Amino acid sequence: MLRIGIIGLGYWGPNYARVVTELPGAELAWVCDASEAALESMAARYPACATTDPDELFAADDVDAVIVATPTSTHAELSIRALGARKHVLCEKPLAASVADCDDVIAAADDADRVLFVGHTFIFNPAVRQMRELVESGEIGKLLYCHAARTGLGPIRQDVNALWDLAPHDLAIIFHLFGREPVSVTATGQAFLREGVEDVVFASLRFEDGAIAAVHVSWLDPYKVRRVTAVGDSRMVVFDDVAMDEKLKVFDRGASYEAVSESARGTEFGEYRALVRDGEIRIPKVAAREPLKEQVVAFVDSCVNGTRPETGGPEGRRVVAVLEAATKSLRAGGAPVEIAAGVHA
Amino acid sequence: MLRIGIIGLGYWGPNYARVVTELPGAELAWVCDASEAALESMAARYPACATTDPDELFAADDVDAVIVATPTSTHAELSIRALGARKHVLCEKPLAASVADCDDVIAAADDADRVLFVGHTFIFNPAVRQMRELVESGEIGKLLYCHAARTGLGPIRQDVNALWDLAPHDLAIIFHLFGREPVSVTATGQAFLREGVEDVVFASLRFEDGAIAAVHVSWLDPYKVRRVTAVGDSRMVVFDDVAMDEKLKVFDRGASYEAVSESARGTEFGEYRALVRDGEIRIPKVAAREPLKEQVVAFVDSCVNGTRPETGGPEGRRVVAVLEAATKSLRAGGAPVEIAAGVHA
Amino acid sequence: MLRIGIIGLGYWGPNYARVVTELPGAELAWVCDASEAALESMAARYPACATTDPDELFAADDVDAVIVATPTSTHAELSIRALGARKHVLCEKPLAASVADCDDVIAAADDADRVLFVGHTFIFNPAVRQMRELVESGEIGKLLYCHAARTGLGPIRQDVNALWDLAPHDLAIIFHLFGREPVSVTATGQAFLREGVEDVVFASLRFEDGAIAAVHVSWLDPYKVRRVTAVGDSRMVVFDDVAMDEKLKVFDRGASYEAVSESARGTEFGEYRALVRDGEIRIPKVAAREPLKEQVVAFVDSCVNGTRPETGGPEGRRVVAVLEAATKSLRAGGAPVEIAAGVHA
Amino acid sequence: MLRIGIIGLGYWGPNYARVVTELPGAELAWVCDASEAALESMAARYPACATTDPDELFAADDVDAVIVATPTSTHAELSIRALGARKHVLCEKPLAASVADCDDVIAAADDADRVLFVGHTFIFNPAVRQMRELVESGEIGKLLYCHAARTGLGPIRQDVNALWDLAPHDLAIIFHLFGREPVSVTATGQAFLREGVEDVVFASLRFEDGAIAAVHVSWLDPYKVRRVTAVGDSRMVVFDDVAMDEKLKVFDRGASYEAVSESARGTEFGEYRALVRDGEIRIPKVAAREPLKEQVVAFVDSCVNGTRPETGGPEGRRVVAVLEAATKSLRAGGAPVEIAAGVHA
Repeated sequence: MLRIGIIGLGYWGPNYARVVTELPGAELAWVCDASEAALESMAARYPACATTDPDELFAADDVDAVIVATPTSTHAELSIRALGARKHVLCEKPLAASVADCDDVIAAADDADRVLFVGHTFIFNPAVRQMRELVESGEIGKLLYCHAARTGLGPIRQDVNALWDLAPHDLAIIFHLFGREPVSVTATGQAFLREGVEDVVFASLRFEDGAIAAVHVSWLDPYKVRRVTAVGDSRMVVFDDVAMDEKLKVFDRGASYEAVSESARGTEFGEYRALVRDGEIRIPKVAAREPLKEQVVAFVDSCVNGTRPETGGPEGRRVVAVLEAATKSLRAGGAPVEIAAGVHA
Repeated sequence: MLRIGIIGLGYWGPNYARVVTELPGAELAWVCDASEAALESMAARYPACATTDPDELFAADDVDAVIVATPTSTHAELSIRALGARKHVLCEKPLAASVADCDDVIAAADDADRVLFVGHTFIFNPAVRQMRELVESGEIGKLLYCHAARTGLGPIRQDVNALWDLAPHDLAIIFHLFGREPVSVTATGQAFLREGVEDVVFASLRFEDGAIAAVHVSWLDPYKVRRVTAVGDSRMVVFDDVAMDEKLKVFDRGASYEAVSESARGTEFGEYRALVRDGEIRIPKVAAREPLKEQVVAFVDSCVNGTRPETGGPEGRRVVAVLEAATKSLRAGGAPVEIAAGVHA
Repeated sequence: MLRIGIIGLGYWGPNYARVVTELPGAELAWVCDASEAALESMAARYPACATTDPDELFAADDVDAVIVATPTSTHAELSIRALGARKHVLCEKPLAASVADCDDVIAAADDADRVLFVGHTFIFNPAVRQMRELVESGEIGKLLYCHAARTGLGPIRQDVNALWDLAPHDLAIIFHLFGREPVSVTATGQAFLREGVEDVVFASLRFEDGAIAAVHVSWLDPYKVRRVTAVGDSRMVVFDDVAMDEKLKVFDRGASYEAVSESARGTEFGEYRALVRDGEIRIPKVAAREPLKEQVVAFVDSCVNGTRPETGGPEGRRVVAVLEAATKSLRAGGAPVEIAAGVHA
Repeated sequence: MLRIGIIGLGYWGPNYARVVTELPGAELAWVCDASEAALESMAARYPACATTDPDELFAADDVDAVIVATPTSTHAELSIRALGARKHVLCEKPLAASVADCDDVIAAADDADRVLFVGHTFIFNPAVRQMRELVESGEIGKLLYCHAARTGLGPIRQDVNALWDLAPHDLAIIFHLFGREPVSVTATGQAFLREGVEDVVFASLRFEDGAIAAVHVSWLDPYKVRRVTAVGDSRMVVFDDVAMDEKLKVFDRGASYEAVSESARGTEFGEYRALVRDGEIRIPKVAAREPLKEQVVAFVDSCVNGTRPETGGPEGRRVVAVLEAATKSLRAGGAPVEIAAGVHA
């Protein structure tokens, strides 16, 4: 039985609390938040110990693992202190506010020989897992490019801009699909509502082999969109998280050019002919499992059985590396910025 | 009665022929194409004179105006020769393959004192006109940003890349909405099917006052999308040209930050509070008029009555200026490129 | 503070429990179910008294009102016993399995001078309330007809057929919109999965003045549909409960015939000319209030302040009257069946 | 080369003219309409002989086959006269205004030994053909029921009501899917716009073996719907003719009851347990062939090669038989009406 403490009872904290209490192999031992009201509200529902002081939680003997669900700016420090107290850590994404901080957290986990798990929940989303299998199995062919949109009217965050708020989801999904990280990024955007806090960002990624990806995030859009499109050279897949039933669509579609023989050449452009294949669409059944629960199950498994996290330090760090580079590009009017070399597990 | 000759009987030429014959104030006098088969096919339908030689058309006395509907690379030369023969010209978009060529065409029109009209058909689309009125009337407030997507699986062009093929539509619409052109552009993309011909491009535009716009064009996408979103600070509008009935949607939605008084400050970020207004959606009735016909009517009006074209040389040139700059950015890995100063009418 | 007991902890019971505990003016005093496991599960969440014996609940002094959320066949008997014990009653729909039973429950409420409230939750749905206002205010003109569909793949009920399971919702909404009940009904359908239990039913209603309505319910359909369309002679409204955002759409559309003057008559059918008005669509913002909560608030208000229930005995009875008549029609191959005269408050 | 004459140049006539001229094996020889203007408009496009007098057409030696595209009330008489003149006949649906008239037309075709083909165009729609194959191949299992909706705001016909205007399409599709005709029908509806001409009709059909079908047609509806749903006991199919791309959807979904063993019985209803299978959705690629053209090709084939029409007299008659019975039911307030026994080829 893994005894878990949760720090931060804003939006995600209470969801983690519910999920932890529902798991047979885990137990909600402690909760911690600066707000007494938040603690009281939890106390009414769960019999966990409560404190406003993280150190009390870290010092507790009856805690094996800590879930850090506080604002981004505190992720690194709290994670490092928890690891220092030899607790396993599940830290909400993004892992930290900078690559340097990520490295410190990763080092802290190594030093303490504890699990560092990053809450990139979408990697545990059954639709994303099926999408990944479509790539891995070769069903969509060579993955050429992805584009993702995560827009809507709010909710508007105060601590980070729309890039740091929304793009971690899409970046994590895209890197998971590609199985690697990009080499450079350009980003443009604007802060319309409040100076210095971009509410609209367009980012564009380039991979070593010429593959590309683009991400559009916005707090100021009429449509709520949560969609990732992956285009392979033999099939295409769309994950639409807003759809009721049809969350995943696999399109048996593609195009190619073929050289035309000398005799068949008729026109100026006749040396090549575009061939379009427009076949059937398949909407696979996606399991109705809750991604957050799947993630906590995986975290518990890592803590108890030592399995390597699918979303560990390196996976958390590569997302932050792109966010950091994209921020630089954003400040430089969209100039391409190289991405810091990743940590490899 | 304006006597019109059409050069180029590929996709748009025959559509122009149909529209011209339907207008009371115009007459299809000549058609010209390199292909005898294309001329014969037209001859079966319309009693116009036919030739494979543009010069014969330009020399004809019974032609007042010429519609240039040939591949992009020939637009400038043919337009200049037609203007030199003192014919009014309606040239398909893009006006030319470079800004320098645009300037030459514009100069030729000035010299000949003839009408130069560019076929940015979407400006004559009733939905786009309503959208523009929503901006001009102040109904959507200050226009903050636009984003446009024009994707699908083909049709794949041989002579130009997806940027030059598809983006002229979106750029023309966006500049029409803003009533001005951007100062810089970044573009990224990739040529997956054929070396050197980008099939996927993401472009991002910046206007002098901080407004931005983004355009996503692709020949390799599972979904056929033709959509322009305009976000104002009091309302938002979406033009979806693929929708059956609901082509235009006006969202009474917006967000703002307000400063919070000293006493109300509770948290670290409490100095500002985000306010979201999420009101009703209105789907105005859009007139079912054919944009191409509206455009030819406007062209005839310019030729006959001397009205200034809404899509004249300067409007055609500013689209090419951005395409040219975007191409530079594309070749430079997405580096921002300044846009050549426009010609003002 | 109204002290409430709940009988029946299947699907709706626990939802009622949650809602009651959230209301300031109400208190969850007792819960009752035949299943010990269900009681234990509730005990873990709420500190109410628990019993497997309804009589214990009815006999309790600390209960003012009872919510009956048991299978349909027991509604009447339990409601009558609760009323006999001088408790106010909120009974889940349908009020009873027959009109005769409805009359008995209504009489029991009269005798006990207690509130009888029927759980037609959709009447408290903000979208349905707005729809009703559109009718009442005259905005949609004279209401000509309604059609409703409530289909999907399951969930399949064991105790009642699809008509008694699903149609109460649509009938309640339709009668609420019309403000009156129909005079006759025809129903056809079939029991495909299990003999005697119709899983697909089409019912058609006729009102005294020629207005009509139709209801399609099915447990065997590929699409989950929950939609009510109301066609007035000046506007049309659609309530789509499955839609994410656009739950209510108001169409400024209509048609009419007009007589054509003698001189204008040209053809055989020229005496009349159809005029179609196809104007804008409006999607009003619908408040995000939970219908079940609104309903319990209204019930508490009736109990405490004596306000007449919007969904009292007569409203519950008229739904059962149509279900009963539709069942007769169903057994008679679709022959029209007159509907028992209603009880008027 | 089959020489074809067309009578009636309203909506369908000109479409037939276009299709006939496009076919290699057919020739547009004559056109006939009461309106001189309609004839002139055709003359501008096609070099066929023209007349206002059908008898002139029937008497012409250079006509092998006649397409009757006039109002419904004249179908039977004109078809009989054409057959009497030993012309093959393609008659628009419905074949006639009564079953008796259908029988007369069928007899006339037998007497003349000429082809009688009814224009149930949807039978030649590639999506409907695929749907039929799904039934025939057993892929959807036993076909349990169909429901169809054909609604929208107009166009409002003057000569027939919405049942006779719209339902022939759905009835033809449904009978084609089932491969047989129903035994009884009930229909309800109302004439809102003009006395005696129903603009809204709900019809319900019963087949001998318990299968059912329902059709909803309306000229007064906010949504344009053209949809046929077929529910089999192992799969379900939806044909949505309004959809852009996804015209056909095959749902791997179904439900069944299974008896539960004695020991597993827990509750009152426990003798049976509902099992729901909710698998993937497949959207097959539907060929982009024009149904009207496919139909004329089939007609020409019947005339030239003697192949039995898929939509011959019996198929046309069975649609009229149901329309006639449904009309009786409509006049009788929805009472079920038996359907006249069919003519079998």
